[in-house]
This record gives sequence, structure tokens and C-alpha cells, in this order.
Amino acid sequence: MSKIYVTGIGPGLYEHMTEAAKASLADADIIIGYKTYIDIIKDLINDKEVLSSGMRREIDRCEKALELAEEGKTICLVSSGDAGVYGMAGIMLEIAEAKKSTVEVVIVPGISAANAAASTLGAPLMHDYVVISLSDLLTDWAVIEKRLNCAGEGDFIIALYNPKSKGRPHNIEAAQEILLKYKAAETPVGIVRNAKRKDESYVITSLDKMKDADIDMFSMVIIGNSKTYITEDHLKMITPRGYVL
Amino acid sequence: MSKIYVTGIGPGLYEHMTEAAKASLADADIIIGYKTYIDIIKDLINDKEVLSSGMRREIDRCEKALELAEEGKTICLVSSGDAGVYGMAGIMLEIAEAKKSTVEVVIVPGISAANAAASTLGAPLMHDYVVISLSDLLTDWAVIEKRLNCAGEGDFIIALYNPKSKGRPHNIEAAQEILLKYKAAETPVGIVRNAKRKDESYVITSLDKMKDADIDMFSMVIIGNSKTYITEDHLKMITPRGYVL
Repeated sequence: MSKIYVTGIGPGLYEHMTEAAKASLADADIIIGYKTYIDIIKDLINDKEVLSSGMRREIDRCEKALELAEEGKTICLVSSGDAGVYGMAGIMLEIAEAKKSTVEVVIVPGISAANAAASTLGAPLMHDYVVISLSDLLTDWAVIEKRLNCAGEGDFIIALYNPKSKGRPHNIEAAQEILLKYKAAETPVGIVRNAKRKDESYVITSLDKMKDADIDMFSMVIIGNSKTYITEDHLKMITPRGYVL
Repeated sequence: MSKIYVTGIGPGLYEHMTEAAKASLADADIIIGYKTYIDIIKDLINDKEVLSSGMRREIDRCEKALELAEEGKTICLVSSGDAGVYGMAGIMLEIAEAKKSTVEVVIVPGISAANAAASTLGAPLMHDYVVISLSDLLTDWAVIEKRLNCAGEGDFIIALYNPKSKGRPHNIEAAQEILLKYKAAETPVGIVRNAKRKDESYVITSLDKMKDADIDMFSMVIIGNSKTYITEDHLKMITPRGYVL
């Protein structure tokens, strides 16, 4: 019986991909993924069979992976960042479970977008943090709103996935408004675009000015806790762990 | 001027380490780290100079790294998992900032323990989640308690770092008690010991039975949200993203 790897290829640059991720690509007969991610790894694929498709075709891709694996093929389903964080791991396992398939599904972890962006910003995620997606495509906005309130109340560091897209230009402003109820206006905010991809860029700003920054669907937004500070050169953001220096 | 890499070596197995992490080890004149982590990477170090020290010597290690870098050496300060999640990235940057050092500090991200454990369990972190450390060595217990309450209130998935050690055997029970105020007794809980290291093992249980499981300082505990379920074979834990199948 064959198997399906669900592989987190990491943020983009090959140097931040793991050996296990590369091995899963090499082991596969067929590679399946969203075309943007296939483009990222195209130099690692050589002449393998590739099935790429557009956004929002996640269920189709998983069903196809399962069908081909049932026929005896080894599949690598690629996901950017970590496959287990808003990636393909869940839906692939859900579909395998729903269809009572006995195909082996192996999740290969990758550097998540939040961890990649944090390393560019310095060390913002050094204490308790929450990861929230602002996309209300699959989640009710009321749930997201509630979680933003809880994250603010708990003085967590916050990593926001999918902060903005054409379809939801205002969610980031709504999030800012909620968080300003709990966090100081000057709370440091780091925004990394294309984290650990070529053309990476970032800015460090503050919660009250956050919505004036350029934010899009390639951005990760990290908002500090009450102890997070910006270095004197304004290039890094640090959340102290609590050591006494 | 020389530099300091603060490198996340990932969970342990080399296959889950990135190329950038290996390159930073190769580029260093001197490797500095907690001895347990130095042991993990010993086959990658060859005959390089190594300074290893025991637990709780984090500040010493960073000061030494800075001192040697100021003398012109390239240093690799190693951290397990991701250097930016309860790792060495923050304290190294804090010390460099406090001493107004101009040494370049480069943070190299790694697969975090939470992402590694999640991949073993299936796909528990597929929706909004919080990461909380139960160690009250550097954080007041009242803060941890408050955050557990907020995490429960927000129906977040929860990844618990440092769930139990000899010095704090009861924090996990206190956490369980708090979370049972918000989450159902049967909420799935995955406990992974030595995630993505040799001798990895895991169990899947429920929130009400969590404290009866073997949990120690090498364990990562992941508690589901209200939608998380366990597969029929009881081998995987999945949190749905919200797709309609």
C-alpha cells in the first residue's frame, strides 16, 4: 500500500526547508499542490509528475491525492510553511478518515510562517503567544472577534495569519480596534512581507499605526505583549522571557 | 566584525533540521549551547571548539558568545526547536542590546516543538491556537493562570510547553482544572514525548484523564478546541479548519 506525504515546505527559501521535506518530494511519484507553492519548489521536482491547481481547491487536491495513492502511487501534497498550521494536513486527514481509507498519511513538519517572520523581526515570540487567522472564509467573524478579545485580555503576543486580502480589506482594522481595548497604543507591531522568501521586507511600527502600514495576503503581523520592546536602532522587536540582566 | 547565529536546530532528528541551521554550524568558529542540545548535534560539529554548559546558564552563554564575537569569532549559539520560542534568541538579543554591542545577531528559525509534536499527532493545530509555558521559573503563576483562562474562554487549541518537571509537578493539574471550566471533559489531548527525536512516543487521551498520563519535561501537551476529534483507529487527532466535506 502506498502513502501520502503532506509536506510543509517551509516559508520559501530552500535553506529553510528540512531534509525530511526534500526526501518526501524525492520519494513521491506525483506532487500535488497549489500552483504558487509548486512554483516555489520547481527546482526540486525535476521531471516528476505534478498536479497543480488554483486557490480554494484544497478538497479536490486531497481527493485526487487519495485516489492516486489508492492506485499505488506515492504522493507528496505540498503546503507552505508548516502543513499543520492552516495548511493541508488537516483536510487531508479529514478526507482519509471520512472515506475510511487505509492509505498511510505522513505529516512532514516545516518552519511555520509565524516562526519565519519572528526570526526576521528579532525575537517577538519569546513568551506565550496566540496564532489567529483573520480569514473569515471558513470561520465566523464572531469567533475570530471573540478570540481577539481573549488574546488581548490575556496579554498574549499575537501572530496574525491572513491579515488582509482583497476580499477582506477591513478585518485588520477591526482587529486593531479590538486589541487597542487591551493593549497600549505604542505596543510594538512587526509586519513581515514574504518572510524568508526572496523579496522579503519588513517594518516595525506600533499598534495605533498598524493599519497605515502596507499589509497584504503575503504579510505576517506580529503584535507584542505588554513587555515587548523595540531596539534602539529600531530594527528588532524583542519580547523578554523574564531573565533579570 | 564577526557575528552570532542563534540557531534553532529543530526537535532533534537531523532530518528535521534546515540547511540554514546546518550552514550556521558549519560557518561558526565556536559552538555554544546547553549540553543536552550539543549532544544532539555532536555528529555535525566535527572538531570545532564547543562550549557547553548546564541548565539555567543562559545568560552566561550569551555573555560568552558576545565576548568571543567581539574578539572576532563567529559563534553559533544553539537552541532546540525554534530559537525564537522559549529559546535563546530573545536573551541573546536582549544582552546585545543592553551592552550596546554592534555584533550582528542572526536568528535562524527551526521547527518548533509544538509543530513537531503536532505532526506526530496528526493535525491538532489546524485552527487558532495558543502556546503557553507552564514553567513559573521566569513567569508569575498568576500570569500563567490568567492566560489559561483566556485560552479556555476563547476556545483555542492549546500547546503546553514545560508541562511538568520535578520542580513543578502540580502545574499541569492546575492547568487541567482551569481548562475543565471551559472545555468538555472529553476534549482530545495529545501528549508527545521526545517529539521527532529517537525514542519518540505519544498517547492520545482526553482532558479529564490528562493528568493520569505520563508527562515530563520532554513532553509536549496539545489540547484540542471544541471541534477537535480523534480518528476511529484512535491514532490521530484532527482539528477541522471548517471545510464542508
